[in-house]
Amino acid sequence: MRSEQFQVDTSHRTVVDLTDRVAAFLAAQDEGLVNVFVPHATAGLAVVETGSDSDDDLVDALRRLLPRDDRYLHRHGSAGHGADHLVPALMSPSLNVPVQQGRLLLGTWQRIVLVDLNADNPRRSVRLSLLSG
Amino acid sequence: MRSEQFQVDTSHRTVVDLTDRVAAFLAAQDEGLVNVFVPHATAGLAVVETGSDSDDDLVDALRRLLPRDDRYLHRHGSAGHGADHLVPALMSPSLNVPVQQGRLLLGTWQRIVLVDLNADNPRRSVRLSLLSG
Amino acid sequence: MRSEQFQVDTSHRTVVDLTDRVAAFLAAQDEGLVNVFVPHATAGLAVVETGSDSDDDLVDALRRLLPRDDRYLHRHGSAGHGADHLVPALMSPSLNVPVQQGRLLLGTWQRIVLVDLNADNPRRSVRLSLLSG
Repeated sequence: MRSEQFQVDTSHRTVVDLTDRVAAFLAAQDEGLVNVFVPHATAGLAVVETGSDSDDDLVDALRRLLPRDDRYLHRHGSAGHGADHLVPALMSPSLNVPVQQGRLLLGTWQRIVLVDLNADNPRRSVRLSLLSG
Repeated sequence: MRSEQFQVDTSHRTVVDLTDRVAAFLAAQDEGLVNVFVPHATAGLAVVETGSDSDDDLVDALRRLLPRDDRYLHRHGSAGHGADHLVPALMSPSLNVPVQQGRLLLGTWQRIVLVDLNADNPRRSVRLSLLSG
Repeated sequence: MRSEQFQVDTSHRTVVDLTDRVAAFLAAQDEGLVNVFVPHATAGLAVVETGSDSDDDLVDALRRLLPRDDRYLHRHGSAGHGADHLVPALMSPSLNVPVQQGRLLLGTWQRIVLVDLNADNPRRSVRLSLLSG
């Protein structure tokens, strides 16, 4: 299985578009599924439109669904950090996208994003793995 | 990788059962994972029971969790359309189901459904890909 | 495709750590993706930290997002059981984790868990399938 791991800096962004990086991992004849995996307990992945404010809407929705207050039993780091640990339950850190002839078969407006509300850890790893079909 | 794309008309349904279509894609000796992928930024997939009102409960829950009002920065199309763009963040457009001897290994009450609250686009594509094990 | 099914007793736990069981399924040279699949309509899977109260926070969040009251059209079994049927829509019953040299490529704090709020059915099946890369 071909695989690769790279780092993402999330200090200035909570929604990071990974699509170009995933596309660059693929070789011309690749066919199968590419698995994107984030080995962190406070980040998730999604396929959403970016560049038209939906990424900000997503952050707002997550803050509403998982309020950053003191309701959580898990407490350490920044205020409301317990909420960060629930993000991967709603947005899985594992995502598969079909690949044909070296291209991601995403729809026109679909982008692969990392979602990370956790300000305490700005260095994130992302692992890509190609499962040949 | 064997793959196939088909169209679904969602003009009269927000939860569309795809199970029979996915099952029909499989050949007798298939073994591996079937990936179901929806190349749209405002639809998601789920594995839920259908035909016993849980599909309507799901639509109600999504409308409650992602209210269709004017809170969203992303605005075009129908009122509340910004919410549609968050559906795939909570319900991924990519889903894998194990396959053995040409059969989906779903539980008795599990069905594969497309969830689409977006009334602006009633024509949806679904891609099926078989990863042999 | 190598696969295996085992039973989990959820009578005393709503979040069950499956990680050791999944790791034990792998052989030394395995490389690819392991698919974890729960063939039940009222349970889901997640990758979260356990043992530091986030599992209890997750149960609280699910009870808040999917209240256990009489709002659901789907009614049978225990009070609020309609909510159980929506859990797999937010937390998919299918999960893939990359594997290299027989080891799950999870992050330090990531654990694979079964989430099951349904008190009516304490016997759950979990299926593991290895897709070689």
